[in-house]
Amino acid sequence: MKWNRSLPNGTKDKLFKEAMQSYHLESIVNHHFEHRGYQRIETPLIEFEEVFEGMDQKATSRYRFFDEQGRIVVLRPDMTLPVGRVVSTTGIIPPVQLFYSGKIFRVIKGHSGDYSEQLQAGMELIGYESLKAETECLINAVSISQKCGIADFQIELGHAAIVESIVVELGLSNEEQQVFAQILQSKNTPNLLAFLKKYETHKLYPFVSQLSRLFGDWEILAQARQLTNQPAILDAISEMEALIAQIHQVYPEQAITVDLGLVRELKYYSGMTFKGYTDQSAGSFFSGGRYDQLLTEFSVAPVPAVGLVFYLDKIYSIINRQTGWENPVETKTLIHFEEDCLQAAEALIASEAASRLSLHQNLEDSLQYAKQWQIPQVVHVQASGVKFYQVEDVTNE
Amino acid sequence: MKWNRSLPNGTKDKLFKEAMQSYHLESIVNHHFEHRGYQRIETPLIEFEEVFEGMDQKATSRYRFFDEQGRIVVLRPDMTLPVGRVVSTTGIIPPVQLFYSGKIFRVIKGHSGDYSEQLQAGMELIGYESLKAETECLINAVSISQKCGIADFQIELGHAAIVESIVVELGLSNEEQQVFAQILQSKNTPNLLAFLKKYETHKLYPFVSQLSRLFGDWEILAQARQLTNQPAILDAISEMEALIAQIHQVYPEQAITVDLGLVRELKYYSGMTFKGYTDQSAGSFFSGGRYDQLLTEFSVAPVPAVGLVFYLDKIYSIINRQTGWENPVETKTLIHFEEDCLQAAEALIASEAASRLSLHQNLEDSLQYAKQWQIPQVVHVQASGVKFYQVEDVTNE
Repeated sequence: MKWNRSLPNGTKDKLFKEAMQSYHLESIVNHHFEHRGYQRIETPLIEFEEVFEGMDQKATSRYRFFDEQGRIVVLRPDMTLPVGRVVSTTGIIPPVQLFYSGKIFRVIKGHSGDYSEQLQAGMELIGYESLKAETECLINAVSISQKCGIADFQIELGHAAIVESIVVELGLSNEEQQVFAQILQSKNTPNLLAFLKKYETHKLYPFVSQLSRLFGDWEILAQARQLTNQPAILDAISEMEALIAQIHQVYPEQAITVDLGLVRELKYYSGMTFKGYTDQSAGSFFSGGRYDQLLTEFSVAPVPAVGLVFYLDKIYSIINRQTGWENPVETKTLIHFEEDCLQAAEALIASEAASRLSLHQNLEDSLQYAKQWQIPQVVHVQASGVKFYQVEDVTNE
Repeated sequence: MKWNRSLPNGTKDKLFKEAMQSYHLESIVNHHFEHRGYQRIETPLIEFEEVFEGMDQKATSRYRFFDEQGRIVVLRPDMTLPVGRVVSTTGIIPPVQLFYSGKIFRVIKGHSGDYSEQLQAGMELIGYESLKAETECLINAVSISQKCGIADFQIELGHAAIVESIVVELGLSNEEQQVFAQILQSKNTPNLLAFLKKYETHKLYPFVSQLSRLFGDWEILAQARQLTNQPAILDAISEMEALIAQIHQVYPEQAITVDLGLVRELKYYSGMTFKGYTDQSAGSFFSGGRYDQLLTEFSVAPVPAVGLVFYLDKIYSIINRQTGWENPVETKTLIHFEEDCLQAAEALIASEAASRLSLHQNLEDSLQYAKQWQIPQVVHVQASGVKFYQVEDVTNE
């Protein structure tokens, strides 16, 4: 029993139904991408730390250790940067449509309830600069969410260029940028107005001073447009409207919200960003966006790129709460065989749905096992013939 | 380009066809087990090192690092011991039939050509003491190997009790055991006879002195039986004969060899061991055996157990050499759509096999892309109707 509490923080075992359903979710996503013409890519779980230098995430939240030559390596905290590394260094010529699935790792402090190993699956569209790439991402996101069984969810759109162009226009210092980002994240209007005090006469003031309120139903985009004539912001709003129109062509009922004050989570986002939410779970179950600067981390010319990742562990728990899982196929027939009848037993398994071999030596043990696990029927295969037992009968034997 | 050589030793990227086929192999194995009534189990990639203390493997060949509380953790070098940990500590009541798939990690020194991350999938039968468990293992091994596409392979059987009982009967010291094991592994008859010099009058001498030759076709079992009357060895031979008879009932043509001088690779093997070999690859592509002592590592009473693991990366390379892979489904039709026609384009994709959306903004780029990737047909979806382009025509546009 000494092992009971002996799993490292943030790790867990997945047993039986959870392990199976979690694997099925991964299969659904992979199958979808394969059939939509995507090409699979698998990068190592162990990489040099420099691959992830482009991430905002603090270095302390990574698992770091030494390889056999004493160089620092990490367990990958992200899948997009390794894909960028591959595309930049292997002579793959964009455009390409890639997909992946696997584990990523983040050190979990204390008992936050998060897991250090997370199962993800996602897509990367590399080399496409048009809105069709964002459209493709979200069409896939809706289709995959439906295939996974998520009954009801919202897409939230943001645009990295909005806050970015405000930061530039107002000439905010690094420190001011951080304060500004915190205010926007908390959507605190009084703090926002106090922060903007010295910019009251700035041409962006009418727009920026409303930013803590410019979120919610996508129809606020029309309202936001009236508040500014700054070209970068107007372009961003137009892009968001165009993307929404595309999604609604295929999925007219899809709920879509926007947040114009959204601060990009990863510094490599350069255009629209997307997240998927349900009422059943805090945090998003998918997220993505355009990151045209990402590949410059790997010292090549900028290449347009859009990606999206599904958090499969989160999807698992959403479905658990929304509708529950269907039970996996349960054994209906247990086949007990005598040593000289294995071939006949195997033939029965092939022909009889939901049947399996009993590995017990004695018929009594097989019957007992069937009773314990509520398997309704036991078939005893002998050279002289086949005998059927219904499990209700077992106690009468 | 600075990234070109910048992957940690023993790691690699899997791209496109290799990534896809490797994932398909994993799916084949998982699908097989699921449909045979097995239950899935997933343990963390990060575990405390003590879980693996039962392994012979040297501690230096593991990736070790600190968790956030400063405790030593490792990347799992094996999947069987974590399964043992789970069964011993979670109240799961044997018998159970479990399966798993995932990565294991071993530090690779220098440029051996081995990989530090290896993809495995396997089964664990826990709580079954009869030969039916070994039979089930090998029936699955043959069936899965066939489903994976391995055209021709041999099963090699060994029995841990044979060398073990010789060691006990001869009273070999730890040092002598190591020398003896090396001689047996190299099948060096002169060295064996020299080693046995002082045991020439021992009742086991007629058997042990032949041990470097007692391997090959399973018919040598009858010959080996004539060399001794030691009960443990005779029992082991009988078990091997019985298992071979079982396999040949279902797969009469299956090649099976034996090696009576086989030294167990893992100290927890207690009964028969099995490996699968082809001519296309050094080393086995599956291995397994009975390890009734394993669960005692986790301080509970012994529980009988038999397991088998497939080395999926090795299976991938065998099939590459044997028959090659079928090409994945290739895109036959690229669908270029105007902004207001996404819905019609999506409907086309659903109805047209091997079709996918073009994400290029302009028709010219879509045609160019199709030509470059030898996609025979481009469909242009406009509000006014649908136009077909055969890619041979492109240059004439």
